[in-house]
Amino acid sequence: MTANATYMRMEIDEIPDAAQRLLDGSAASLAEAGQRLRTLQPVMVATIARGSSDHAAAFLKYAIELTAGVPVASIGPSIMSIYGRELRLDGCAAISISQSGKSPDIVAMAQSARRNGALSIALTNTAGSPLAESADISIDLAAGKEQSVAATKSFVSSVVAGLAILSHWTEDDGLKVALGKLPEALGRAVTVDWTPVIAALKGHDSLYVLGRGPALAIAQEAALKFKETCGIHAEAYSAAEVLHGPARIVEAGFPVLALAARDASEAGVAEIADRLARQGATAFATTDRVTVAQRMPFVETGHGITDALVLIASFYGFVEMLSRHRGFDPDRPPHLKKVTETV
Amino acid sequence: MTANATYMRMEIDEIPDAAQRLLDGSAASLAEAGQRLRTLQPVMVATIARGSSDHAAAFLKYAIELTAGVPVASIGPSIMSIYGRELRLDGCAAISISQSGKSPDIVAMAQSARRNGALSIALTNTAGSPLAESADISIDLAAGKEQSVAATKSFVSSVVAGLAILSHWTEDDGLKVALGKLPEALGRAVTVDWTPVIAALKGHDSLYVLGRGPALAIAQEAALKFKETCGIHAEAYSAAEVLHGPARIVEAGFPVLALAARDASEAGVAEIADRLARQGATAFATTDRVTVAQRMPFVETGHGITDALVLIASFYGFVEMLSRHRGFDPDRPPHLKKVTETV
Repeated sequence: MTANATYMRMEIDEIPDAAQRLLDGSAASLAEAGQRLRTLQPVMVATIARGSSDHAAAFLKYAIELTAGVPVASIGPSIMSIYGRELRLDGCAAISISQSGKSPDIVAMAQSARRNGALSIALTNTAGSPLAESADISIDLAAGKEQSVAATKSFVSSVVAGLAILSHWTEDDGLKVALGKLPEALGRAVTVDWTPVIAALKGHDSLYVLGRGPALAIAQEAALKFKETCGIHAEAYSAAEVLHGPARIVEAGFPVLALAARDASEAGVAEIADRLARQGATAFATTDRVTVAQRMPFVETGHGITDALVLIASFYGFVEMLSRHRGFDPDRPPHLKKVTETV
Repeated sequence: MTANATYMRMEIDEIPDAAQRLLDGSAASLAEAGQRLRTLQPVMVATIARGSSDHAAAFLKYAIELTAGVPVASIGPSIMSIYGRELRLDGCAAISISQSGKSPDIVAMAQSARRNGALSIALTNTAGSPLAESADISIDLAAGKEQSVAATKSFVSSVVAGLAILSHWTEDDGLKVALGKLPEALGRAVTVDWTPVIAALKGHDSLYVLGRGPALAIAQEAALKFKETCGIHAEAYSAAEVLHGPARIVEAGFPVLALAARDASEAGVAEIADRLARQGATAFATTDRVTVAQRMPFVETGHGITDALVLIASFYGFVEMLSRHRGFDPDRPPHLKKVTETV
């Protein structure tokens, strides 16, 4: 590490240790949350989050649906904070995610969910925060202070916490093994080199990031980071959804990053990356299955869900470089604060 | 109507009649679906859709949550079509929406939902389609043939069908009254003039469309139409969510359209439109409550939910003009087909 590394780069390098610290330090509460869900057998899970935390929630939605077979609904906090509407959530679980644990809309919706019958689980990086205090079970992400405005390690730790709970809930041995090896895989992922993409993006301020299944949530997080750290209008789409209209703006040179994971969607994502490349896109994909789009290196973890997660560690390293390459300070984007409170 | 009007413009003008035809012609099946939901008292509602139909589903999510107090989960069709995972949906309802009723991923997910215990309701514009055939209750949108690639009347009729079912389910008299008056309100909405926005967008190929609550779904539909008919990279955000990072790219002149409805969110949406205008955005908003952003005219319907819906009728008229103004044929966008089938 150089003396003048950004906070963002330092915090990316902390991702593997932060994940290990969470899995060790919060082991008891993660197991307890999983056991409570196992006993409850929730009819559905509601997620409550905004920004990067909402992308962690979107990741967990796919992971829970694919692993536990239980549907997951993302609830807009405005239902409570703006419209004052209570939802019937008997027999449900609610997972709230917030780094600061204090945005008023998130706290109000989480409190409403618990009041209306949901088992309330909070994932926060701030023990003692209003969100942590309001939950039945509160998980301390223990990611350590995050100084860069752009969240990195707190995003990864939010997902890891949710996956650990899920592995206890479903007693899924494959997922447990994958989580045990995850810090090591994250250590490899943060060093993956996507430098060639930087040159390809030259002159472009608009692009798509594609994914499918859990990797769609990674695409959403990547698109937000393109905006925050580089001022690039990146938008995330499901690799299927993009064909239902959004492909219209993919003209010659339009950049497309397809974040494919090693799961059942890989071949389909590769096919769509190739299709958009034939349409004129400058397309990159994290899969060896593409024939027209350009391949980007990726890390394998031995499990489809963690394979999707580690993509973001590689992306973070890339986008931090891109930000500096474009003359920005990734730690201090204009117009943004670290803690955003909305109602 | 001029002899050389586009199909899109003609189909926009058909919106009020199509809504009336649906409310009259499918009255019995709409009432039956509502009664079935009233009897079932679903613990949650799953929606299954893509593209414009998925925006109709997002609208119905807010409408159902705000009116019935039942959580709604948007289920990615890939859960079944790609991952082969069945979800536990006992005691739930599933609403599938597809104009053509034949995209394989939508049909597979809808069949899976019914097989796993959900009451399956299909909203399609194609009676006898695989989706219609697979459902417990099938609603014929009766919107008539849609020739423009960009869906307009079928989107509005999808929402109207869902709201009519909801009004029977909850026996909400206010919503019933609002639906009775809706065709007339849509007739006013399709003539609203947003011409001044056309000049303000000159030279811009990237923008945000904001909304909150049901109007967020309208913002999503508007953003897709900007892409499809004008090649403009428009992205939709919740007026709260935009502050959690996306506001970073709002620099001098960046266009923002805030689609505010006459509901509890109106003041907050106006405030955020003003805030982004102060940050340098060229901001427009469909509310009289803005002080810095520019006001756009809107139609009132006497109900917050239908107030949000009619915004899209005004937007469609605007974007069709914008498309022609930019030299495109709104009926035939490059790279797109009317019926998109994905797996």
